[in-house]
Amino acid sequence: MATTEHNEYGPGYRATQVKHHEWRTAENSAGHLLPRLKSMAKETPQLKLLDVGAGSGTISASLARYIPDGQVLATDLSDEILDRAGKYAESVGVKNIKFQKANVYELPFPDSTFDITHAHQVLCHLDAPSDAIREMLRVTKPGGVVALRESEMRMWCIWPELPPLLQFHNVAAKTLVANGGQDNGGRQLVSWTLKAGVARDDITASFGTWCYSAPDDRRVWASAMIERLRDGQMRGKAIELGIATEQEIDDMANAWDEWSKTDDATLGIMNGEVLADKK
Amino acid sequence: MATTEHNEYGPGYRATQVKHHEWRTAENSAGHLLPRLKSMAKETPQLKLLDVGAGSGTISASLARYIPDGQVLATDLSDEILDRAGKYAESVGVKNIKFQKANVYELPFPDSTFDITHAHQVLCHLDAPSDAIREMLRVTKPGGVVALRESEMRMWCIWPELPPLLQFHNVAAKTLVANGGQDNGGRQLVSWTLKAGVARDDITASFGTWCYSAPDDRRVWASAMIERLRDGQMRGKAIELGIATEQEIDDMANAWDEWSKTDDATLGIMNGEVLADKK
Repeated sequence: MATTEHNEYGPGYRATQVKHHEWRTAENSAGHLLPRLKSMAKETPQLKLLDVGAGSGTISASLARYIPDGQVLATDLSDEILDRAGKYAESVGVKNIKFQKANVYELPFPDSTFDITHAHQVLCHLDAPSDAIREMLRVTKPGGVVALRESEMRMWCIWPELPPLLQFHNVAAKTLVANGGQDNGGRQLVSWTLKAGVARDDITASFGTWCYSAPDDRRVWASAMIERLRDGQMRGKAIELGIATEQEIDDMANAWDEWSKTDDATLGIMNGEVLADKK
Repeated sequence: MATTEHNEYGPGYRATQVKHHEWRTAENSAGHLLPRLKSMAKETPQLKLLDVGAGSGTISASLARYIPDGQVLATDLSDEILDRAGKYAESVGVKNIKFQKANVYELPFPDSTFDITHAHQVLCHLDAPSDAIREMLRVTKPGGVVALRESEMRMWCIWPELPPLLQFHNVAAKTLVANGGQDNGGRQLVSWTLKAGVARDDITASFGTWCYSAPDDRRVWASAMIERLRDGQMRGKAIELGIATEQEIDDMANAWDEWSKTDDATLGIMNGEVLADKK
């Protein structure tokens, strides 16, 4: 049985981090689910979607817009972030969404409750991802779908290749692992889903990306990373782990600042994706 | 001025390689262009699309289907592959496509000839990619678009992480570089396009992926890689460069075979993408 020790969310919930996460929408972060969601919503307008580990809730709110007659339930471990997510949904006028504190290993819902169960960047923070997928399948109706998307922390491509940014990538991956997460979760999604009991024929695998290159996108990304480095948990963790000095951390923050002001700057990040059909 | 020394296509044109390339379609390899192509085709049904370095021509033929009243011109350096591409187009019933031998640095067309100029996995093999983009822009009409997609050879994620497959990835990247190509072209696309004279505001950047995970996709991929290793140019090149022994090459081929038969096997590859508006 999975412990819940590693369920805390490493990067924390500071304002800049949350703003960075608010950049995430269904369109840029759940593209693998959208065609299925649209076709299911046509057949079942009142469908029920569970978003597990919803964090700042912007993907959840964005998904809710696709099912105006349906209902989204967004869960997270943190009351603080759920409160913020609720205010965000209200501020953008999304009404068909509710929030509830829940642990992905023990979801407080009966079997076969939801048409779609979705998790984004959740499993890579867990020590027993297959147990979490099995629990998500349990609460999903037969004929429904479990949609997963997990970062590949190793798969970043940065341009220009400023050495402090390459070091940053290394520190970020090591910090994730030190917090109990996995830095190659995206490529393991099919494997985890098979271990959760889904047949290979019922799995559709793909990879999706984030691209930070347009000036506004660069600014959102860089300010979040600079905050993690200057005041956030990443600074403390990197020092604690002995993988970066104070000077190196300052160099990384300055390099992100420089990068955000560089016209040909680009950052690509790859994510693994799975749709698992519940039989 | 760019030399043309490095314009030869390293992997070669053997049957299994071509079959592997025939897996590539507009849908899985030119997704960044399709929305623009569709909207342009609505306004200008007879639009003219140039596909530079079209190779086996499956993406070209696939693009041609989106413009039934338009015309695709597919070019390549090799008569042999153009002949094969012509037969492929004929075999799938695509008629609005023509083929012509051409060098991307000196395209034999007047200024402002095409509505869309497209290149896929071409620039990463060149030693002066910005010169090639400038030439593609020249033959594109004002109001038209240049669409580029280039592999990020460094950005592969393989599962399971069998050591011979990780070595294969390393050898493939080194071979590309030894052949005069670049193994981090995808991330440089924005930079190359800026150097070709396009303003940042006229560039839309994104990243796309290939995913080999479903059984059929794994088989197509693995047989092409096994052929490259057992009989193809990769074997000779790796030995010549001293980056793999005969035994290691056989181990890699066997590992791809094992991988293709493994249910949770996954390979993700990331590609940089740019749409550049011609003003």
